[in-house]
Amino acid sequence: MKIAVCPGSFDPITSGHLDIIERATFLYDKIIVAVAKNTLKKPLFSVEERMKFAEEAVKNFKGVEVKLFDCLLVEFAQKNQAQVIVRGLRAITDFEHEFQMAQLNRKLDRNIETIFMMASPEYGYLSSSAVKEIAKFNGQIEGLVPKEVEISLRRLFGK
Amino acid sequence: MKIAVCPGSFDPITSGHLDIIERATFLYDKIIVAVAKNTLKKPLFSVEERMKFAEEAVKNFKGVEVKLFDCLLVEFAQKNQAQVIVRGLRAITDFEHEFQMAQLNRKLDRNIETIFMMASPEYGYLSSSAVKEIAKFNGQIEGLVPKEVEISLRRLFGK
Amino acid sequence: MKIAVCPGSFDPITSGHLDIIERATFLYDKIIVAVAKNTLKKPLFSVEERMKFAEEAVKNFKGVEVKLFDCLLVEFAQKNQAQVIVRGLRAITDFEHEFQMAQLNRKLDRNIETIFMMASPEYGYLSSSAVKEIAKFNGQIEGLVPKEVEISLRRLFGK
Amino acid sequence: MKIAVCPGSFDPITSGHLDIIERATFLYDKIIVAVAKNTLKKPLFSVEERMKFAEEAVKNFKGVEVKLFDCLLVEFAQKNQAQVIVRGLRAITDFEHEFQMAQLNRKLDRNIETIFMMASPEYGYLSSSAVKEIAKFNGQIEGLVPKEVEISLRRLFGK
Amino acid sequence: MKIAVCPGSFDPITSGHLDIIERATFLYDKIIVAVAKNTLKKPLFSVEERMKFAEEAVKNFKGVEVKLFDCLLVEFAQKNQAQVIVRGLRAITDFEHEFQMAQLNRKLDRNIETIFMMASPEYGYLSSSAVKEIAKFNGQIEGLVPKEVEISLRRLFGK
Amino acid sequence: MKIAVCPGSFDPITSGHLDIIERATFLYDKIIVAVAKNTLKKPLFSVEERMKFAEEAVKNFKGVEVKLFDCLLVEFAQKNQAQVIVRGLRAITDFEHEFQMAQLNRKLDRNIETIFMMASPEYGYLSSSAVKEIAKFNGQIEGLVPKEVEISLRRLFGK
Repeated sequence: MKIAVCPGSFDPITSGHLDIIERATFLYDKIIVAVAKNTLKKPLFSVEERMKFAEEAVKNFKGVEVKLFDCLLVEFAQKNQAQVIVRGLRAITDFEHEFQMAQLNRKLDRNIETIFMMASPEYGYLSSSAVKEIAKFNGQIEGLVPKEVEISLRRLFGK
Repeated sequence: MKIAVCPGSFDPITSGHLDIIERATFLYDKIIVAVAKNTLKKPLFSVEERMKFAEEAVKNFKGVEVKLFDCLLVEFAQKNQAQVIVRGLRAITDFEHEFQMAQLNRKLDRNIETIFMMASPEYGYLSSSAVKEIAKFNGQIEGLVPKEVEISLRRLFGK
Repeated sequence: MKIAVCPGSFDPITSGHLDIIERATFLYDKIIVAVAKNTLKKPLFSVEERMKFAEEAVKNFKGVEVKLFDCLLVEFAQKNQAQVIVRGLRAITDFEHEFQMAQLNRKLDRNIETIFMMASPEYGYLSSSAVKEIAKFNGQIEGLVPKEVEISLRRLFGK
Repeated sequence: MKIAVCPGSFDPITSGHLDIIERATFLYDKIIVAVAKNTLKKPLFSVEERMKFAEEAVKNFKGVEVKLFDCLLVEFAQKNQAQVIVRGLRAITDFEHEFQMAQLNRKLDRNIETIFMMASPEYGYLSSSAVKEIAKFNGQIEGLVPKEVEISLRRLFGK
Repeated sequence: MKIAVCPGSFDPITSGHLDIIERATFLYDKIIVAVAKNTLKKPLFSVEERMKFAEEAVKNFKGVEVKLFDCLLVEFAQKNQAQVIVRGLRAITDFEHEFQMAQLNRKLDRNIETIFMMASPEYGYLSSSAVKEIAKFNGQIEGLVPKEVEISLRRLFGK
Repeated sequence: MKIAVCPGSFDPITSGHLDIIERATFLYDKIIVAVAKNTLKKPLFSVEERMKFAEEAVKNFKGVEVKLFDCLLVEFAQKNQAQVIVRGLRAITDFEHEFQMAQLNRKLDRNIETIFMMASPEYGYLSSSAVKEIAKFNGQIEGLVPKEVEISLRRLFGK
């Protein structure tokens, strides 16, 4: 059985994340969406909210599980018998950062492989930060995030 | 009448910004320099100061107006009957970020087009952050910013 | 009157080129599609065919003209009273090459400005070479090029 | 059963290719090394030689098969029941070209996914062209290519 | 006598920094490792600790001195009779930032030249931030930093 | 004594090359301009002409010698007691290619170091190919190449 981890802060999960996760379900037997407890920037949503949004959004995908993740990524993969880390690539700066992380993780455990999938063109522009920025100014976010996230963002930012 | 928006935080406006704004005046009937109220990092100058510097610097350009901007960029463009967003490009990381913003803005309003102009070679290295860094250590900033900004920065950082 | 030049080898013109040309018509009074006589690689179609395809494809756009171009780009712009060169950007390697050409053209004539527009996400992957490669192996090219080009490519490559 | 295709011109196969192929064998049940009949540049080795080198080099890997490939890549994948195309990434220019190919292939068949693996640091500098360049000047190519390729290159270029 | 400056925040110094510094000793008569007092992000280690780690790590290199640096880089170079600034390059985003800094420094003083050396492949993934991240989760950092730094990081983050 | 090699095809030598060579003379005791006999693309000028142009152009620089080069670059460096290879960087695609060459050369001989210098902003757009392209259409090349090259190019391309 091939198990893959899709790690991230998912603050909140977007249609771009879901595109990668869904496509990954066709490649591996099980996908673990690993929601990072701590994030580089202070998150808008608590880790519980971020997990709840992810769970709701993937509930119709086959073989996807959402888990909290609060350790080194390779350690998380080891504990969950995952052989693969799946990352979506959007842009050059993504690419460089991801390249360094993949090399580093491989140094920490050579048996865990990182594979990259390209974002679908229609989500190439999409990021959690962009969605929050638009929501803050009451812009149109329909289709950019799952319905539940859309409702929460609207409630949070007024109107 | 073709109206274009040049958005930014302009903290403070530099000779690089002015190069792009001036070149844009030859392409459009009216240019609105849109000074963002809120900026990602805490600004050195208040929005009033940033606008005042911009107004002073563009006062001899034809058809340029400075306005405060505190909403989504496409909304600002709509309200001001602008069809075009003008962005200066300096570097690869600029490029990627700008690409994502342009795609996103086009998704929000297909009638507003983002166009990019290359920074002139002599300003390719210039940024507001770099100028502030040099000023902080009392380095030479003559020619990198308008005279008024130069004086303010010197006063702020001593000597 | 603002006149813009869209230069290229257009071997053949694709839906990606047409997307940029059409969007440019909203920004300038007149667009000249400048078809380069000589191309870096030996072209598949003669310059007459490449022009004919371009003319057919833009015939419903407002204010677009197709012209042969066999000199320096800035010279072509000067002769045609164009103030602007419009370029579509798809990728990083595009970006670098374009950056160098734009700087060089500005050195040759400071009054001619190059502006860049981002390819729409659905055409980000598209290039004349890719289309020819697919056509060569009788792959599906519908929607990637105008109908006339599609028919010519099919005829050229058999079946 | 998950089947993956590793396409290339393999002119000749290098230790960098083999690193990616071997790592891919741990992720999929079967790997098909697809040797392109036609290549962009005139190849140094005939397609028969390129296949023979590849076969010799992968003979101890589990579940790897070498096949000739003379059609669209997605068509080749379809015929071979492969769901995945595996590509090694070395550099930015690789990245851009690969990104465009992946998008295009996905447009041609949405059921075939392209995944990317990063070259191991020790092979990041390696390419078939570089190896040939070194061999041409009788430089040291030991370890950069399989033994058989090394011998052939030496024979070809003298001494 | 050719003197070169290797500037950085060194929070903490890594094997990647030491690789560049050591290689630079073969190119110049004297290398000054310039430890920046202030850093963009709040440093983990005080400037005294960062200097102590650097001094300990370079003590067996020939002609290397560690100094505090709290001014413009070109001013520091001038004061120390250095003609050269040495920077290690890892990635594209490094490259762009470094390019801008080099141009700016050259504008401030045309007699001080910035030269770049590529990180060795085995350290291409390494950064002070990555090391701190791994240490925080008690991951394996042996070989990534000098022994003294390794001990300090372990003590700091527990176990 | 520190000896550095500046390799290239120099077809023909440009003001951009000369900018790097001149700046390198301040860093090393001797600079060898190594003119490659064979070039990737068919050169416009014979290797004798390319060497003659280079010799004429550097004749007033201190400690610069021009030599023919028809072997592996590291071998050439070894034969000439050079410890350093100097490369000018203009753009991202340069960067990637150069990175690979530098790694490869270091694998072939760890005692030869490649260092990179950034092109001056005013020459960032300049390349031998661009100059030839402009000359072909009788465009203005004054200042882009040394006087002798300018005259030869004009004679070659007419008028």
